[in-house]
Amino acid sequence: MPREVREVTATIICIGDELLIGQTINTNASWIGERLSLHGIRPVEVRAVGDELDIMLRVLAEATTDVVLITGGLGPTKDDITTHALCRFFGGRLVRHPEVEARIEAMFQRLGRTLSDLDRSQAALPEGCTVIPNLKGTASGMWFERQWEGMSAPRVYVSMPGVPYEMMAMMEAEVLPRLCATFRPPTIVHRTLVTSGMAESRLAERIAPWEDGLSADGIRLAYLPSPGMVKLRLSAYAARDAAEVRQRVDLKARELQALIPDLIFGEGTDRLEEVVGDMLRKAGQTLGLAESCTGGRLSHLITSVPGSSAYYRGGVVCYANAVKVELLGVPADVLEREGAVSRPVVERMAAGAGKTLHTDWSVALSGVAGPDGGTPETPVGTVWMAVAGPNGVRSTRSIFPGDRDLVIQRSAVAALNLLRKRLLEARG
Amino acid sequence: MPREVREVTATIICIGDELLIGQTINTNASWIGERLSLHGIRPVEVRAVGDELDIMLRVLAEATTDVVLITGGLGPTKDDITTHALCRFFGGRLVRHPEVEARIEAMFQRLGRTLSDLDRSQAALPEGCTVIPNLKGTASGMWFERQWEGMSAPRVYVSMPGVPYEMMAMMEAEVLPRLCATFRPPTIVHRTLVTSGMAESRLAERIAPWEDGLSADGIRLAYLPSPGMVKLRLSAYAARDAAEVRQRVDLKARELQALIPDLIFGEGTDRLEEVVGDMLRKAGQTLGLAESCTGGRLSHLITSVPGSSAYYRGGVVCYANAVKVELLGVPADVLEREGAVSRPVVERMAAGAGKTLHTDWSVALSGVAGPDGGTPETPVGTVWMAVAGPNGVRSTRSIFPGDRDLVIQRSAVAALNLLRKRLLEARG
Repeated sequence: MPREVREVTATIICIGDELLIGQTINTNASWIGERLSLHGIRPVEVRAVGDELDIMLRVLAEATTDVVLITGGLGPTKDDITTHALCRFFGGRLVRHPEVEARIEAMFQRLGRTLSDLDRSQAALPEGCTVIPNLKGTASGMWFERQWEGMSAPRVYVSMPGVPYEMMAMMEAEVLPRLCATFRPPTIVHRTLVTSGMAESRLAERIAPWEDGLSADGIRLAYLPSPGMVKLRLSAYAARDAAEVRQRVDLKARELQALIPDLIFGEGTDRLEEVVGDMLRKAGQTLGLAESCTGGRLSHLITSVPGSSAYYRGGVVCYANAVKVELLGVPADVLEREGAVSRPVVERMAAGAGKTLHTDWSVALSGVAGPDGGTPETPVGTVWMAVAGPNGVRSTRSIFPGDRDLVIQRSAVAALNLLRKRLLEARG
Repeated sequence: MPREVREVTATIICIGDELLIGQTINTNASWIGERLSLHGIRPVEVRAVGDELDIMLRVLAEATTDVVLITGGLGPTKDDITTHALCRFFGGRLVRHPEVEARIEAMFQRLGRTLSDLDRSQAALPEGCTVIPNLKGTASGMWFERQWEGMSAPRVYVSMPGVPYEMMAMMEAEVLPRLCATFRPPTIVHRTLVTSGMAESRLAERIAPWEDGLSADGIRLAYLPSPGMVKLRLSAYAARDAAEVRQRVDLKARELQALIPDLIFGEGTDRLEEVVGDMLRKAGQTLGLAESCTGGRLSHLITSVPGSSAYYRGGVVCYANAVKVELLGVPADVLEREGAVSRPVVERMAAGAGKTLHTDWSVALSGVAGPDGGTPETPVGTVWMAVAGPNGVRSTRSIFPGDRDLVIQRSAVAALNLLRKRLLEARG
């Protein structure tokens, strides 16, 4: 980072015994770390501690960063003691907030539930804090500013619920904007291109010569892999002239796009199921599915997108062969002769789904997710995928590594990517 | 914990910038935490810090537990500085270990690679440490014992690689056995009962009087919630007589079982979809699904269980109303009159799925997952669920809180639980 930029640092403190004993993986910390980084605030430490007052007080006292973000321990039960610890640390008492109580009451009313005293106790918060509303749950966020002796600027402490979607909504809507307004962290220019269809190590080899030239331009490249996908993030600090830095990053993004156009399907937080959904919506076309080995995983992916009912009509999960025959019209003799995990069967499944569900496009999968059921010719991980559409039927076979869950997940993503490519071809 | 038991505590320190900026989720910490807990060593804190010397030295100095486990930062590249930090912290110099160098050389030979000076540098380790062999990679583990002034027993520091499978192999083969031999930690007796059908706060109220009596018996209760479920874990330290403590914990587990028999569906790592699958398998009965709002999520849950094809025949995801009519035989006029999210429709969906898929049992869901599509009478989160089986059709309506994904997940779990109850009734 250039010298003239004042760095803003953060500590992330996560509360809960479940984080220490392996019951819960700390995904909150990594999500917060990424969001802070992208806003120019540098996380220097993550601490996870249990629901114990003494340790919480010590950890709060040891934090020396500009920002201290705390998650968890705000529930209504006895083992949730974050609010109590904050009261002790900042030296105040609990004050009942009528507007918070009203919000909790309204939330319970909407759900048709009655409020208990325990639920009501969540409206009691330490005095001197700014209440941050929780739009998704009953535990309010709390914002404290303290300028301890000898400090040139105030330190900000924010306490948030540990439930991921409540915390995330609060971070995006309230905490990040407030932190940026308070500390004015340096701008970080970043662009993320999302790829599917090639593993991280092979992708790295393919773009190695181009990647070597990045550092001379002050640009960093990060590989962010997840099953079936790799995100490529370009980032650079912008001290003063953000526009110039943005131009440099944009140029590199265009170079990367030209280098691997076959692999890049979107930008930023684009999801493959959204990209495919947009293509279908714009084309005014519909989709149907026939899933065997993926057992509904692809349907779940597609319907995780709000508004997917505009193009997704439905699917058939055909675990039993009789369902393939009766609902999808796969001839029993073809099934018998070729086996369920075969090109002829998966292509007929796709065609049958299109006919049964009256859709323009249909995708079918049949494979061996494991751990049992593999043979020397068709080992565990073998998956046939077919896409049927206005431009005919096409199918492909892959062998995916990993356990049952990973095979299912990778198959679903690969089938979606196949559909994307067929949609692109059809658009021509 | 009873007074006579000396508790053994641990700090887990994870090194690496990737842990702070959200590039890598810290699965090492949760795995280590679980392994330690099950061996009677209590993790009191997890700290993740970047590859920075000053911060590492501070974090090492602040650890006051019996055991300090360090992962990561042992690679050969410049940004891996754990070895350097340990040298500084313990005050020694780097010593080249010929036997370690020979092992690295042999490993490279096996892979057909030549050793660089950088690779060879991994054989240089701080003097005064016991080398722990890495059977899966080139970075050796290091074991330090130090009895600082005023301490009654030595503190143990162990440095391990950050690559998960290398670390795990080293923990299992060397580190855990050595820690147990050094500290002789107390046995921990624990039992976990898994519940579904009641939220954490209401569950806590229901069992509060019973819970209050636990501490007198030296037993702790932890609530471990996840969407649609709450695990209740009873645990107690066993100083000498583990059998007696186990009896006490078993008694409490039986009491809890008697208190909430309607909510408890299993033990330990039991999953609802496995429990239901076992019931179906034992009854020699089959299952089919009709999913609207859950879009395949319940089917995915059921098929995540290996061997589910023994009882699960398949499902219909009926996003479009025409699919409800054509594949499930829901009368068009009922759909028109009652709306898709209604008791008459969901009961006909369930009956239709049983008929179309030729199954003994069938489950149907229809609801508003959101974020759009809600009305004053049928707000977002409203879900109708029906189970049809040998003992007739029954349906119920719930309103689930949370975003689209959570509503879908909670609905799927609730429907499974409904099926479990109907299966229990049918069994009599």
